[in-house]
Amino acid sequence: MEHLTTIDRLSLNQITTGNWNLRQAVDGCVRQEIPWIALWRHKVEEIGLADSKRLVKDAGLKVSSLCRGGMFPAATESERQKRIDDNKRAIEEAAELGTDTLVLVCGPSSDKDIATARKMVADGIEQIVPFAADYGIKLGIEPLHPMYAAERCVIVTLNEANTIAEQYQPEQVGVVVDVFHVWWDPDLYNQIARAKGRILGFHVSDWIVPTPDLLMGRGMMGDGVIDIRKIRNAVEQTGYKGPIEVEIFNERIWNQPGDEVLRVMKSRYLEHV
Amino acid sequence: MEHLTTIDRLSLNQITTGNWNLRQAVDGCVRQEIPWIALWRHKVEEIGLADSKRLVKDAGLKVSSLCRGGMFPAATESERQKRIDDNKRAIEEAAELGTDTLVLVCGPSSDKDIATARKMVADGIEQIVPFAADYGIKLGIEPLHPMYAAERCVIVTLNEANTIAEQYQPEQVGVVVDVFHVWWDPDLYNQIARAKGRILGFHVSDWIVPTPDLLMGRGMMGDGVIDIRKIRNAVEQTGYKGPIEVEIFNERIWNQPGDEVLRVMKSRYLEHV
Repeated sequence: MEHLTTIDRLSLNQITTGNWNLRQAVDGCVRQEIPWIALWRHKVEEIGLADSKRLVKDAGLKVSSLCRGGMFPAATESERQKRIDDNKRAIEEAAELGTDTLVLVCGPSSDKDIATARKMVADGIEQIVPFAADYGIKLGIEPLHPMYAAERCVIVTLNEANTIAEQYQPEQVGVVVDVFHVWWDPDLYNQIARAKGRILGFHVSDWIVPTPDLLMGRGMMGDGVIDIRKIRNAVEQTGYKGPIEVEIFNERIWNQPGDEVLRVMKSRYLEHV
Repeated sequence: MEHLTTIDRLSLNQITTGNWNLRQAVDGCVRQEIPWIALWRHKVEEIGLADSKRLVKDAGLKVSSLCRGGMFPAATESERQKRIDDNKRAIEEAAELGTDTLVLVCGPSSDKDIATARKMVADGIEQIVPFAADYGIKLGIEPLHPMYAAERCVIVTLNEANTIAEQYQPEQVGVVVDVFHVWWDPDLYNQIARAKGRILGFHVSDWIVPTPDLLMGRGMMGDGVIDIRKIRNAVEQTGYKGPIEVEIFNERIWNQPGDEVLRVMKSRYLEHV
């Protein structure tokens, strides 16, 4: 399997430098010559949509995705409608920020009925697809690791994400493959192949052992047990040649100097992705 | 769905009272009139096999299972052989202790090649089946939650466990359903139905939110998000009427007085299982 020889496809998902605001992240990418950035809405909100757009554009950065829409299941119809409205705002923001992909973190169940929550996810996506299409935004369903099923996302396998996505045209709804979330799945390579034409994003980090924390326990590529290159090759065999986001939730990494994180990230990207 | 009306099937998995030795756990079960106990090998070893056997027998307790065999994948042939030998010892111990079920925690991969590790699990089981049959011991493959894939068990879905088990007669190899490990699985109810005649154990606890720790973060039944009763009903529809083990890894619970834990466990069992 071939190494990547350039960082042309490398994207800083800004959660990796969680202590940086958007301005600092943009400046860091410029200094480190990282061509892509993935934005988070709470970071955009800190400095405002217009300024965020201008900062990214003036820096010449490309935006690989906006994170996140989703969070569809809720106990009441009115709350579910609020979530739909919020997804519409996220779609507008994504378009304004110059990306074509909104990442969906689909949300947890509001009660013990996870099957119904999964239906609410499918229903929610159905409701926002036409709106997203009007803005030229693709919806990327990101299955999260099953350990997040109770708190973040009832969609926990690529199989489920593919099944929902296949209800729509590939230019409308697809999937996001994050190695941290899917590496354990015995059906992974079948499901990646099945997602051909629908992979809207590819995220990398690593699963470190021991895992210090459910949320903040991700590692830098090469520090863990995931065969990242094998997964990348499978993703590329489907035709995906888009940006590769480095998305690491880890407080220890957050507390390192951002430029150091970006330097390590670049070398690990070439070595392990 | 019907409540359980008695604790006839309730088993204390002794990891739930992790600070108790086997003698204390046996005495606790007698005081609280819990008819079953599930033993762990490191607890048996503390006081010796012969004394453990005598203690349990004299108390009139039934042993629902011994935990654990497994841990098959290893980097070298000689190390894999050591694991087989250890499994054979576990089978002898299970028979000596008076249970018919050895729970298999199949083990992590020794490198990034999780597919090969899964083959090593299947190969390891194949090697010990005849030995187990000689002792009248059934091998219960327990899929663990995917968050343990790197450290404890590459078998993370009931689908995988069923696929291996189906290579053998039901009286030789089956599966263990632990709600904590499988509740998130979109294919859960299909796989429980598929396991008909092969379910060798049913374990309960709960998934608490927020989850404080990967290993030690399980909760008492009723404190979390798992629809335990729905899963129990599915398990019983396959014909399983055996013991129900309460298996909770949680240091806060370990630090409570053991009898208090058993009292709560009994009432939660009737209320939520």
